[in-house]
Amino acid sequence: MTTPSNPHQVVIVGAGFGGLEATYRLAGAPVRITLIDRRNHHLFQPLLYQVATASLATSEIAWPIRYLLRNRPEVTTLFATVSGVDAASRRVLLEDGGEVNYDTLVLATGARHAYFGHDEWEQWAPGLKTLEDATTVRRRILVAFERAERETDPVRRAARLTFVIIGAGPTGVELAGTIADLARDTLPRDFRNIDTRKARVVLIEAGPRVLAGFPDDLSAYAQASLERLGVEVMLGQPVTECTRDGVVYGGKTLAAKTIIWAAGVRASRAAEWLGAPADRACRLQVEPDLTVPGHPDIFAIGDTVTISAWNGKPVPGIAPAAKQEGRYVAESIKARLRGEKLPPFRYKHAGSLAQIGKRLAVIDFGRIKLRGAIAWWIWGIAHIYFLIGLRNRLAVAMSWLWIHARDQRAARLITQGSSKVTG
Amino acid sequence: MTTPSNPHQVVIVGAGFGGLEATYRLAGAPVRITLIDRRNHHLFQPLLYQVATASLATSEIAWPIRYLLRNRPEVTTLFATVSGVDAASRRVLLEDGGEVNYDTLVLATGARHAYFGHDEWEQWAPGLKTLEDATTVRRRILVAFERAERETDPVRRAARLTFVIIGAGPTGVELAGTIADLARDTLPRDFRNIDTRKARVVLIEAGPRVLAGFPDDLSAYAQASLERLGVEVMLGQPVTECTRDGVVYGGKTLAAKTIIWAAGVRASRAAEWLGAPADRACRLQVEPDLTVPGHPDIFAIGDTVTISAWNGKPVPGIAPAAKQEGRYVAESIKARLRGEKLPPFRYKHAGSLAQIGKRLAVIDFGRIKLRGAIAWWIWGIAHIYFLIGLRNRLAVAMSWLWIHARDQRAARLITQGSSKVTG
Repeated sequence: MTTPSNPHQVVIVGAGFGGLEATYRLAGAPVRITLIDRRNHHLFQPLLYQVATASLATSEIAWPIRYLLRNRPEVTTLFATVSGVDAASRRVLLEDGGEVNYDTLVLATGARHAYFGHDEWEQWAPGLKTLEDATTVRRRILVAFERAERETDPVRRAARLTFVIIGAGPTGVELAGTIADLARDTLPRDFRNIDTRKARVVLIEAGPRVLAGFPDDLSAYAQASLERLGVEVMLGQPVTECTRDGVVYGGKTLAAKTIIWAAGVRASRAAEWLGAPADRACRLQVEPDLTVPGHPDIFAIGDTVTISAWNGKPVPGIAPAAKQEGRYVAESIKARLRGEKLPPFRYKHAGSLAQIGKRLAVIDFGRIKLRGAIAWWIWGIAHIYFLIGLRNRLAVAMSWLWIHARDQRAARLITQGSSKVTG
Repeated sequence: MTTPSNPHQVVIVGAGFGGLEATYRLAGAPVRITLIDRRNHHLFQPLLYQVATASLATSEIAWPIRYLLRNRPEVTTLFATVSGVDAASRRVLLEDGGEVNYDTLVLATGARHAYFGHDEWEQWAPGLKTLEDATTVRRRILVAFERAERETDPVRRAARLTFVIIGAGPTGVELAGTIADLARDTLPRDFRNIDTRKARVVLIEAGPRVLAGFPDDLSAYAQASLERLGVEVMLGQPVTECTRDGVVYGGKTLAAKTIIWAAGVRASRAAEWLGAPADRACRLQVEPDLTVPGHPDIFAIGDTVTISAWNGKPVPGIAPAAKQEGRYVAESIKARLRGEKLPPFRYKHAGSLAQIGKRLAVIDFGRIKLRGAIAWWIWGIAHIYFLIGLRNRLAVAMSWLWIHARDQRAARLITQGSSKVTG
């Protein structure tokens, strides 16, 4: 297919699951594409908690964006930070003063964790969205055990060995189960003064159950499984305070030196750039065709939007949803260039998966519900399948094999700070 | 073997090649060991340049020290920073106020890079000693290509695409060759506005030849091989200035935004702790039995000392030398506990190896000298053999296989900073 001399310019902001899928699906279309991301890598976020718990290496779940698109000469990758959108003149503005013209703009700018008006909690309770977040959490977890090993005061030692996870969605459940595995199976023989199996892992959730997006029976199974791993599950308990010494929830104070935030997200600044309507979590409200109201040439997808396109329910903030939206946008752009129009976006839910511990998971396929070891195998195979490239599939499979056969985790590295790091 | 109730206390500072080997070789001796390191991991430094050039992941060349010693209950690993030694009362002092008593002390505290009185150069010309150093250099190299891709001014673009390595010892040669490989083979198809093959890699050396520790003919071969890869080799040219914009050498100014320091090291502060005699690079001068003069209960080994125990020549600062010294110290401690005394330490040089490019290396086994592809295979097999653990051997072998078969480097990650990073 030849590209016209002045082809349609598509600018895609964000190379997460949605933005990358839109780019892939525009292959062969008579367009030129500029893909902008402030990171040089696409990140496989569903496994980020495994970097945070020393199970996987950073490079096993991240790929250079340019490399993924090396065979697409019509795609230009820009390593740049977007500062705004001038919709009147159809320009994306960059922080370094540059700008990029578009005919069609796709905003796929994702979300960060949010602290519900308590941004000061972030320093004590980091969240998990980027590779740096993951290595920060990993450092805190590993340093906590190191400090406990050298602490002689039993009260302070107990606080070092208490790990609090706030929020019992999939990320919180996965973190809690994996930290329990780490303390029970990986670390015990490595320490001389502490019994790492006595570490407390406390999962605190404001709502009435864990994995609220799953059916009741799978939630109950997940909770029972976590408790068998030794995780203390506290439900219906909103956290009212985070400090360097611990958390306050339900009027109780819990001394803990390691707190991880998995409780909420806030969308990117895309709504602000456009002055467009957004919900409490700053998510753009989009039309049924995923365009921004009043801006038919601007699509918005993924975690930065809220869509009711799933039997009236909001589409969940998961990778398959973002990918379906990216694909819809690509098809929609191609249809428009042919002078056609697609029917509204409809989300098809393939299933929900969450790992609990080393060999346990829950899966909700709608009619079929799975739990335990069989669910874990399907979970593992599905995740390896969705990784990019044979090399990473082999590497992750090998890392998991070692964890399961020998309880050895490859990436127990404390980086960005020597023993002098406070924590 | 039973350990006496009040066993001999050995404190080893530094879990590099020397300190770890001493710990290993003391297995079964009637001693208790405290191994202190300010990092939680042992680092395979000979491959650090491969992390800096995106070829290997950090976790492929680093292992948690505790994990390596998990089956040695008489060994306690301390994650702490040493601030001094009180030789009179036989105590090691820690920065956090703690202290550890010893009967025998082994100082294996290594070296950092040194700027010969120009410490202000470090910000523009980072060296390569820790994992963080390596990810910093990796970030600078990758960001340079990203900036060049977006630079429209040809002069500034050329400066972005100029990579200067100062010092042509093994690390400098290996860095130069691998950056040339990266620019020529890995990156070209990923960029749209620049031809990465036109990047300049300039290796500047004050002395008269590259790889000064090797015989003349291997030096000449290494230089010719580098030049075939496109590396510009500048000999007899001391660098007199490093700035954010480039370097000055031999009166000439070279505009370059990426400078890497591989020119010199300075030993740790061990000599200062003891008020003991040291050479210009702060290396302790030790007795023929590797004890510190006037301190028969303190051994010092590895890069923090200078020893003339190789036919009168100084022992080279390489991993096998540190390991031989660690082994000697362990045997010496065991001999003393039996009331015996070992003959002086003698270094046995097994050979010198350096990789040049993707499939080239030089090896000097004394009588036998090898070069080219056969040397590269021996280099690769030797390095995989010396890695710790089957898992890491498999992982590194796989990473190298992918580089060689597909020119794909797994760890092209810009971390610790988004596109806003200056550089």
